[in-house]
Amino acid sequence: MTNTSPNIAVICGGVGAARFLRGLVRVAEPANISAIINVADDMVLHGLAISPDIDTITYTLADAIDPERGWGLRDETWRAMEALGRYGDRNWFSLGDQDIATHLQRTARLAEGATLTEVTAEIAAAWDVDVRLLPVTNDPVSTRVTRADTDEEISFQEYFVGTQHSVPISRVRFDGIDAARLTPEATAAIEAADVVVIAPSNPVVSIAPVLDVPGVRDALAASGGPCVAISPIVGGEALKGPAANMLHELGLDASATGVAQLWSDVIDVLVIDDVDAAHSLAVARAGVTPYVTDTIMASPVRSSALARSVLSASLLKQGSTT
Amino acid sequence: MTNTSPNIAVICGGVGAARFLRGLVRVAEPANISAIINVADDMVLHGLAISPDIDTITYTLADAIDPERGWGLRDETWRAMEALGRYGDRNWFSLGDQDIATHLQRTARLAEGATLTEVTAEIAAAWDVDVRLLPVTNDPVSTRVTRADTDEEISFQEYFVGTQHSVPISRVRFDGIDAARLTPEATAAIEAADVVVIAPSNPVVSIAPVLDVPGVRDALAASGGPCVAISPIVGGEALKGPAANMLHELGLDASATGVAQLWSDVIDVLVIDDVDAAHSLAVARAGVTPYVTDTIMASPVRSSALARSVLSASLLKQGSTT
Repeated sequence: MTNTSPNIAVICGGVGAARFLRGLVRVAEPANISAIINVADDMVLHGLAISPDIDTITYTLADAIDPERGWGLRDETWRAMEALGRYGDRNWFSLGDQDIATHLQRTARLAEGATLTEVTAEIAAAWDVDVRLLPVTNDPVSTRVTRADTDEEISFQEYFVGTQHSVPISRVRFDGIDAARLTPEATAAIEAADVVVIAPSNPVVSIAPVLDVPGVRDALAASGGPCVAISPIVGGEALKGPAANMLHELGLDASATGVAQLWSDVIDVLVIDDVDAAHSLAVARAGVTPYVTDTIMASPVRSSALARSVLSASLLKQGSTT
Repeated sequence: MTNTSPNIAVICGGVGAARFLRGLVRVAEPANISAIINVADDMVLHGLAISPDIDTITYTLADAIDPERGWGLRDETWRAMEALGRYGDRNWFSLGDQDIATHLQRTARLAEGATLTEVTAEIAAAWDVDVRLLPVTNDPVSTRVTRADTDEEISFQEYFVGTQHSVPISRVRFDGIDAARLTPEATAAIEAADVVVIAPSNPVVSIAPVLDVPGVRDALAASGGPCVAISPIVGGEALKGPAANMLHELGLDASATGVAQLWSDVIDVLVIDDVDAAHSLAVARAGVTPYVTDTIMASPVRSSALARSVLSASLLKQGSTT
C-alpha cells in the first residue's frame, strides 16, 4: 500500500457492501476509501436511533459482525429483547444487548446536536475502523413499501423484518429524499474519487436511495473517474434478501442485464458473475462494459479477489462499448 | 381482607415507599391502595424515558427488585452498559439489560401517544401488580439541584448518581411544577382516600415534588381522612440516601421534629421511630400527633408491622393535639 493508492468511493447498502469493503481494505489503502452509505432503512424504534446499514458496515470492518447472521455483533446476548416480551409483541425487531449500546450512543449524540456523519465517524473510530464511513445525508429519508396484496404502505423494516419480505410489493418510495441534502463530506469523497464502486447491494432499497439523493448524480459526473458496479443479481437470484423478487414485482428485469439497464446512466462497467457470462452482450448493448468474474464473496479472501477484479475492471472504462 | 378494607392513598418516592407498600399489601386490600408517585426524578437518557421511582415501586411489588441494590431487577446483566463503555464515559447511569426493556416499552408507548399514567398501569399489569400505581402528573417535572460548591445547577440524577450525592447543595427546585396538572386518576384516589399516608421517602426531592404539584393539597383537604406520615429521618439520619444532609444543607432541621414542622400543614400524625421517642413532645408542639414504633423495614414482615402501625395511627386523628 502506498500513497498512490486510488481514492475510492463505494456506494453502499448493508451486508453485500460490508463484505465487499472487507475485501477492498486488503487491496487498497483504507484511509483512501470512502463508503457512501444508505440511510433510508434508518429508523427510530422505541426511542432509539437505529442505522442498520451503517452498523453492519462498521461491525463488519471491525471484524465484530456475527458471521452466521451477517448482522449484529458476535457473542451477542438478547436479555433486553427477552424482557421486552413481557410487555407484548414489541420485540419483532431484535436488538442485541451490546448492539443497543451503539443505538444509545447514537441517540444521545444526535440529541446533543451532532450530525449523523459526526456520530458515525465517532462510532467507527471507537471500533478502529479506518475506512471513512459517510452517511449519504444527515437528513431523514425513509423507505416506504406498498404491499400489493393489501395496498397498505409500510416501512422498510416492517416489510423486511416484520413480514420477512414474504409479501408482494407494488411500489417503493423514499419519503423525504427530495429535501435531503448530500453531505459536504460525501460530496467531496465522490468528487475526489478516482474510482466509484456500486457495491452488490439491493438496487431497489439500498442503492436507489443513495443515487436518488439530490446531488449524487452530479457529484458522480464531476468525479470523472470510472464507475464500476457489481451486480447483486447472480443467475437471476439475489445472493441474499429480496432484491430479485422486488425487481420482478416492480416490473424490472431481475438479471445481470436488467441491472445494467437500471444503472446505464451512471455506471461504465458492470462486474457480473461467471454464471451470467451469457449476459455480456446484452450488458454491452445497454451501454455498459461487462466484466465477468467470480462475484461470490464466500470468504474474506474471495472478497479481496473480487475487490481486485473491480479495480482491474475500472481500467476498462476507456475501452467501453456504447 | 374484605371489601371494607379502607381506601388508602400513599404519597410515594422510590425505595422507602416501595418497602412500605410491600408491607401494606399484606395488611390491606391491594386493589384499594393507590400509590401517588413522584416523577421529578424522571428523565430521558440516551432517548429512553426513565421513571426511577415508578420502576422501583413496580419491581418491588412484583418481588422482582434486586434485594441488595434496592433498585433494578434481580438476576440482572449489564451487557449494554459494558458495551457502551467503548464509546466513552456515557455509562455513569447504569441500565440493566432487562431494565432497558421497561424503558423501551415506556418510550414506545409515550411516542404512540399514551399518557405516563396509562403506560405505568400497563407495565404494572404486566408484572401482576394489583396496587394502583399513579404518577402524580403526566406532565414533565424535573428536579434541579444547585451545588453549593460551584453554584452550578444540575439534574437530580447528576447529583444523586453522578456525584453520588457527595457535594453540598444550596437549593432545590422542580422545573415545570407550576404548569403540571395533577392527573384525574390521582385526584380521585386522594379525594376518595379514607387514609392518606406519606411514605418514608426523601422529604426534599421525593415528597415535596408530589405535594407541590398544584391541586395536591386541595385534594388532600377534600379527602377528609387522616393523613399519616412516616418519618424518613431516624435518629437524625436518613435510613438510605442523602435526605438528612439535604435537609441540613437547606437550613432545615434533620430530625423527626423537623419533619413534623415541615409537613405540619398537611399531616395529622407522624410515625416516628422508637429511637426518636424523645421527639414526641416537640412533634406534638408542631401540631402533629406523634406515634412511636419501630419504623425500620428490615424485612417484609417488619414492613407489614409498620403498615399495621400506620393504620392504627390513623385512628389517632380525632385525638390529635393541636
